[in-house]
Parts: sequence; structure tokens; C-alpha cells
Amino acid sequence: MDKIHKIINQIKPVNCRVMDRAQKRLDNLTKPLGSLGRLEELARRIAGITGKENPSLKNKVIFTMAADHGIAEEGVSAYPQDVTAQMVRNFLNGGAAINVLARHAGARVVVVNMGVNCKLKIVNCKLKNTKFIDRRIGYGTKNFTKGPAMTKDEAVRSIKAGIEVFKEENRKLKIDIAGTGDMGIGNTTSSSAITAIFTGKKVKDVTGTGTGINARAFRQKVKVIEKGIRLNDPDPKDAVDVLSKVGGFEIGGLVGVTLACAAAGIPVVIDGFISGAAALIACGLEPKTKDYLIASHCSAEKGHRILLNHLGLKPLFDLDMRLGEGTGAALGINLAEASVKILNEMASFESAGVSQK
Amino acid sequence: MDKIHKIINQIKPVNCRVMDRAQKRLDNLTKPLGSLGRLEELARRIAGITGKENPSLKNKVIFTMAADHGIAEEGVSAYPQDVTAQMVRNFLNGGAAINVLARHAGARVVVVNMGVNCKLKIVNCKLKNTKFIDRRIGYGTKNFTKGPAMTKDEAVRSIKAGIEVFKEENRKLKIDIAGTGDMGIGNTTSSSAITAIFTGKKVKDVTGTGTGINARAFRQKVKVIEKGIRLNDPDPKDAVDVLSKVGGFEIGGLVGVTLACAAAGIPVVIDGFISGAAALIACGLEPKTKDYLIASHCSAEKGHRILLNHLGLKPLFDLDMRLGEGTGAALGINLAEASVKILNEMASFESAGVSQK
Repeated sequence: MDKIHKIINQIKPVNCRVMDRAQKRLDNLTKPLGSLGRLEELARRIAGITGKENPSLKNKVIFTMAADHGIAEEGVSAYPQDVTAQMVRNFLNGGAAINVLARHAGARVVVVNMGVNCKLKIVNCKLKNTKFIDRRIGYGTKNFTKGPAMTKDEAVRSIKAGIEVFKEENRKLKIDIAGTGDMGIGNTTSSSAITAIFTGKKVKDVTGTGTGINARAFRQKVKVIEKGIRLNDPDPKDAVDVLSKVGGFEIGGLVGVTLACAAAGIPVVIDGFISGAAALIACGLEPKTKDYLIASHCSAEKGHRILLNHLGLKPLFDLDMRLGEGTGAALGINLAEASVKILNEMASFESAGVSQK
Repeated sequence: MDKIHKIINQIKPVNCRVMDRAQKRLDNLTKPLGSLGRLEELARRIAGITGKENPSLKNKVIFTMAADHGIAEEGVSAYPQDVTAQMVRNFLNGGAAINVLARHAGARVVVVNMGVNCKLKIVNCKLKNTKFIDRRIGYGTKNFTKGPAMTKDEAVRSIKAGIEVFKEENRKLKIDIAGTGDMGIGNTTSSSAITAIFTGKKVKDVTGTGTGINARAFRQKVKVIEKGIRLNDPDPKDAVDVLSKVGGFEIGGLVGVTLACAAAGIPVVIDGFISGAAALIACGLEPKTKDYLIASHCSAEKGHRILLNHLGLKPLFDLDMRLGEGTGAALGINLAEASVKILNEMASFESAGVSQK
């Protein structure tokens, strides 16, 4: 836990003075006061997070972390477990939605194997702006209806791996903004469990149909989560305990990325429900993390809205998406970049010779 | 009216067969069925509008039309009338929000003087991807509390000018997607009047604070609109009558752009309240136009939501923006491009070797 505590201790409050100065600049730009609404709020927040009055978001990275879940054997997903590894290969061949949307946003994708349930041959990814890192903690978690999903040591190691992956990337090529994303058959089940535990809501109120299961499978999913929580009795005050009992290796990795971003003063654009569950755990470890988070979209997966409300985050858009991988984060990063361009590139009333009120 | 009728007759229903084929392709891409939500709907609609299964949106143009309004003398705006011309100059110097956001979306901006109330020296715009066209119908409209804002002939000429501007641009450089935008001190007053007339709602329910007026000016704005409608008695069944009595030259120009886009099978991303008012008039002239419209955002200007509901359009996002110029359209175009890239660039389950349900 030492490495994790060290990172947590580096998370400082965002810079309110810089936010005020950014606001002053926004108020002097050639537009009616406040007329760019949440785009202005976004620019101001990014100024506060980065501590820069004119932040530039050139180097954009999405961390898409993949792992398998023992809970998948309970029939909680519409897809077989093989799909996790198949999709990792798809990411590295450039055929997935995250490849398309990250390219659209000008972001790199760092694909991390946190614990896929098969031997993934190390792929030398030839795609520009896509990278593969193998940080496998294990071959998938255990079925959490029969005991904890992972050991406490594995939970700690998964968070540490996320921190290290982020630090390595940030050292090589200074990151301006990061996005989180996931791949893992069964991971909405894990995320619903995490959401129920932290928010205190009923399991059925934070559980959705994931990749598209029918009503029978949905009832089974709710039962499985209730059973897992009853059996493992996770402590909502101990975020690592929650992660180890009902979480996933990719979720742990994303917790690490989220904490390390906050510690480095870099905005984190969280994707959907799974990245949101990782954010819940990260904020459980250090509540100040919240101020570094930008919620991209509100997922169609119903627990996500409850999760965002709990964190006090308002998503930027609501397009009924429920894909994961970092797809929502890619669109959010694109909007974040637009917002800082407003701050950096617009003329002021004075410089443009435009009359004020 | 001949030219307008000719364009209207060219507006055909969108291609449902191509939409079905695009849907089939979307359903075979490596993602859970429907999991990109409204992004998929957007791609499908653009396929139907363009009649192309794999539409490409390379050439993006935003038409930002400017004009002055006689009604401004009634104290309905927070800014003096000079600002219209000053902002046109700002557009041509690249310092306005539309310059920044259009550049972010990779779109050109065509700035059109439809009737600014001063002699705008023809500017040789040196900015890349920005162009100025002078199609002045007059030096601003008349105060519509004292009679119609313009003559019927002027209304027809403003629509024709919009059609011609679009056709000229499209002839030179084939346009893939267009956005509409506006500049004109006093034009939310005009747009509220148009919205009240077409939707039958009370003036106070479709009137907002525009660029940011106080409560007294707001009451004055409502009174002025009510007076103008009572005096001129526009006929909601005659869209040109509505335009001439309470409209504006830039609104007429945008009606022309909107109709010409629909006639050419090109998607039109409508910006905020003023572009929406132009869309209302265009749909009044030819209801099929509606299927070519993409509503970018829901403006903070309260009549806009009512207007979009009346047209049956659901905006893509709601960021509390109320700036105009085409700023929302620029963000909408960016999202539209992302949606067709999904259609064009993602791998199918078969090609990627990913298992299905």
C-alpha cells in the first residue's frame, strides 16, 4: 500500500486562484457573458486542475484496461468470455469503436492487459497511436458468489500497476489529459456491485442489461450480485476491500490511473459505468480525486447516473451510449479540447474592438 | 418565388432503403447491438439524407449570416447595434467563438452580410477556411412594432440569396455537411416572435434573456413581441408572411441555406434559437425539410426547446450554450463526423474474428 499512499498524498486541492483568473479571461472574450455555458465551466475546471491559465491539451491518452471476471460463469453477460481477448486483439488491429473515436479526438490508446483469461501473445502493435502493455495480475478474477474476486494483495497490485502504467507513459511523453476505458465480459456486474456498496442503493436499482441480456438473465444478474455482497460483506469505508471482494483487475488498474492523474494535476475524463466504478473506488481512497474528474457521458446502463450523482459529477452529454472501451471518454476529451481552445484562441472585447454592454 | 418553389420541389424524402442498409452494417460492427446509442442513429440518418451507405463528411461548411434588426431600437438587447458589424469583423479576423470551434471541427466558415446596418467595407479575408460574401438585402430590417420588418419582396430575396450562396459554395467545393449560424443584435426577439407564431405558444413562454438582459428589459421584450404580432397579424400558414412581418434578413438567408441543403441531399446541422427559427420557416415552406435537419444543441434560450419539440427534433447535447454564430452547429458537425467514422471504419464481428452472442 506504500506506493498507493504516496500517490494519494500527492493529490492536492485544485488551484482556485487559477480558476478565477481563467474565469476573468472567459468573461472578457467576445461573447455574451457566460454564453458558452458548460464549455466555459469545463475550461475553467481544466485551468484549476492543471494550474495553468491557458492549458493546452495536445497530448491526449486513453487507458483502455482489459480483464476477465470469474462471475461471467454465472451467465450474467450476453457474450462468451472469449470476447474479452478477441476485443483486445481488435483494439490492436484498429477495428474497435475506441480506435475510431480516439483517432477522431486525436488521442492515443494505451491498451493494458490487466488479467485476460488466456495467454495473450504479446502483440507488436503496428498501429500508430496505439500501444499494448501487459500487466497481467492473473487469468481473470474468481467468481465472487463463491468467495472474494481477488486477494487483497492482488487488489493492491492492480492499483499499483495502473499507477505505474500511467507514470511510465507520462514520463515518456508528457500527458495533458487522460481518459479511462475498459473491456471485460462480466464487468458491469462487478460495477453494479461496487455502485450498490458505495451508494447504499438496492442492487436492482443500479443494475442494467450490460451488453444486452434478456429479462431472465437480468434477474439472475441481480441475484448473483446480492449473493456476492451478502457472502463477502465488503466494507464501503475500505475501498480496497470493496475492490478485492467484488471488483476486477481492469477496475483496479483504472483506480491507479485515476489516482496517478490526480496526483500529477492532469484531468481524467471518465468513460461510462466501469470507469465510473473505478472513480468511486479512487474517491473512496482519496475524496479530493473527485475534483480532477470530468464525467464524459451518462451511460444507458442505469447505475451510472446514480454513481455520477453520488460523486457529484454532471456528465457532458447523454447519447444513450453503453459501449465502454473509453468511447465516451474520447468524445469528452474532444469537447474538453474545444473548451480550452476557447480560452486560448478567442479575442477579447478590447483586442477585437467590440463594444461591451 | 419561382426559384424558391423550384428548390422546394427538389426536396425528396430521405432514402429509407439506404438507412436500413446502414443499420444492418451498424448491427454487424464489433460492439454490443445498439451500444453507441444516438451516435448510431445519427450515422443512420446521415446515410438516409445523403443516400450513401458510407457517407464521408470531409467538406464541412458553416454559414454564419449576419443582419441588423429595427426592433433593436426598442431596447430588447443588452448590447448596442454596432456590435453586429463589429462581430462580423471579428469573424473575419478569426477572434470569435465560431472561428475557434469551426477550426476545431475542421469546418470552413462562410460569413454572409445579409443586411448589417452600416457600410461594411468589403474585407478580403486572409484567414484560411473563412470567407466573406456580401448579399445585403438592406441596412437592417424595420422596427416591427411599427409595421412589417421587411417587404414581402425583401423576404423572398433574402431566401433566394441564401439558396444562391449555398449553391455557389456547393458548386465550387462539394459540401458534405452544412451548419447554420447567425449574428444580429435583436434577433432573439425576432426568433421568439417566429416561434410564438408557429407553435401557438404564449410569447412569454418562448422568450428568453438573449445576450443577457435584466428583468425590466425582459418584460419590455415580451411586450414588444406581443405588440408586433398583434399589429402585423402574420399568417402561420404562410411562412414567407411570417418572415417578412417579424423576421430578419439573416433568418431569411438561413431559410434559403436550409432548403437548398435539403434539396441537395446534404445534412444541415442547426445551431441554436435563431437557426431554429429559420428551420421553422423552412419546414413551413416544405415539411419534408425536417428529415434533413440535425439539431445540435438545446440552447439556454427557453424558446428553443419548444421550437425543437414542435419540429420533432431531439438535440444531441445540452450544454447551456446561448451564443449563436454557429457554435453549437460546429460541435454538432464534429459529432456527426464521429458517427459516420463509426460506420466507415469499424471492423465487423466476422472480419475481426470476434464471437457473437
